[in-house]
Amino acid sequence: MVHKEVIQKMIKFSSENNFEKFLKNVKVILANNGKCSAEMKIENDHANSFGTLHGGLTATLVDVISSYALLTHPKFVQKLNTCPYGGVSVDIHISYLRSAKIGEEILIEANTIKAGKTLAFLETVILNKNTKDILAKGSHTKFISTA
Amino acid sequence: MVHKEVIQKMIKFSSENNFEKFLKNVKVILANNGKCSAEMKIENDHANSFGTLHGGLTATLVDVISSYALLTHPKFVQKLNTCPYGGVSVDIHISYLRSAKIGEEILIEANTIKAGKTLAFLETVILNKNTKDILAKGSHTKFISTA
Amino acid sequence: MVHKEVIQKMIKFSSENNFEKFLKNVKVILANNGKCSAEMKIENDHANSFGTLHGGLTATLVDVISSYALLTHPKFVQKLNTCPYGGVSVDIHISYLRSAKIGEEILIEANTIKAGKTLAFLETVILNKNTKDILAKGSHTKFISTA
Amino acid sequence: MVHKEVIQKMIKFSSENNFEKFLKNVKVILANNGKCSAEMKIENDHANSFGTLHGGLTATLVDVISSYALLTHPKFVQKLNTCPYGGVSVDIHISYLRSAKIGEEILIEANTIKAGKTLAFLETVILNKNTKDILAKGSHTKFISTA
Repeated sequence: MVHKEVIQKMIKFSSENNFEKFLKNVKVILANNGKCSAEMKIENDHANSFGTLHGGLTATLVDVISSYALLTHPKFVQKLNTCPYGGVSVDIHISYLRSAKIGEEILIEANTIKAGKTLAFLETVILNKNTKDILAKGSHTKFISTA
Repeated sequence: MVHKEVIQKMIKFSSENNFEKFLKNVKVILANNGKCSAEMKIENDHANSFGTLHGGLTATLVDVISSYALLTHPKFVQKLNTCPYGGVSVDIHISYLRSAKIGEEILIEANTIKAGKTLAFLETVILNKNTKDILAKGSHTKFISTA
Repeated sequence: MVHKEVIQKMIKFSSENNFEKFLKNVKVILANNGKCSAEMKIENDHANSFGTLHGGLTATLVDVISSYALLTHPKFVQKLNTCPYGGVSVDIHISYLRSAKIGEEILIEANTIKAGKTLAFLETVILNKNTKDILAKGSHTKFISTA
Repeated sequence: MVHKEVIQKMIKFSSENNFEKFLKNVKVILANNGKCSAEMKIENDHANSFGTLHGGLTATLVDVISSYALLTHPKFVQKLNTCPYGGVSVDIHISYLRSAKIGEEILIEANTIKAGKTLAFLETVILNKNTKDILAKGSHTKFISTA
């Protein structure tokens, strides 16, 4: 299977079993070489009381999609099909630039900036799929030592 | 109604209608004077594939509970029963210190550090309810201008 | 004067008068359209006790160079020669990826992601000038309302 | 020597030799058990062009004073007199709440939240010494593995 399909399958599994339920409609567009891009339509289940994308979901997308990006990094990709391991979160920072409404579609683009011996640095941009306006930017530092 | 009950009612409403579904078992302990504390048992719906508290949920709790804290600040509290408004998120930063397993109980304690004319600064600590070990610390900056 | 020269002059002024003394050797490469790039050789005055770039200086470069980037944004540039105003910092977040030694040269590249009505979102990358390895990434949120 | 005097001596040494020059007037008040508090009068050398505490200096104080706090943590304190090691910065986040003018005095209070096997989590509050108003809050994650 190509990486994209493996990641899509992992999302399917997670979304049937735990907190990642709301990811069930996330469609992986690209997953390779430390990058992962996906798209999603904002539904009622993703929104706050004001009918816009919930900041907590934005944070979760930063967490999850950048973690998938890391799994496709050369350092980790050989384990992708058997025993994926992407470490644990150390720090996540998100800047919220614009809101997005129920019905709008978003792109989530994550990238591995560095996968070192013990720490990985990832960044994520979330955009409005049509206008390409940036909705949020996130940085994610993970502890990845397997020793 | 005391503030605690109003916030509990708001959580009930949100958890029936949108992304905040997973908050349905959050129990508000204290909500007053810019502070909000709550507790929650970690269930399957709050976990990642490793059976521990999902980092995205941690982030969501930082977002949500600190926003409720702000609603009880003297600056906002008079609108709590009629037209609550707590602004929009600008920046959220979370440090993840320890993991927590399904079945464990957590405390979420949020506090308003400053509620200025246009910006509010909030902080949140998430602890293991029994050991009082800190699981995560979060800061949350909101834009609150209503002009 | 082109923007680049104005910014260079502002750096010269600051570096003779206040905390920005260590910036006296910063050379502006580009300053236009919300972007500012500069380069600097790491000297003893920029280092910590281990002879590497001080994390506090890294943070200061994120603060200063991104603020200069904002001054060249269309929203602010008309005041650049007369009464520059770039707001005040709200949140700064920096991830430190690699160290850099005294004698090495660095590039600082800052960009305005959004300059809204009241808030601006800026990002900065600091690289080793020769290897282009990323040393640090920073995000900077500023409050820019002039009302 | 008590820890406080050791840290004060380290500050004196640094301030004669590198970027930490501007720390020469920092007075250590407390340094013990993972905590470090210090005070400083804001002088011209600490200010930006507007005559207020420079955001880069604020960040540097968050970096430096919390690093000293870590050195006094039980995990590290036995090496304090001989071979102090406090790791390297991974993430620093600062929220800027209020400005402070030249001539005002500030308190810097840093605390070790967790010193684990490979990562330490520190937090710092900077206050106006007279009013006790919070000027800035910072979190600092360090990589501390010595293996």
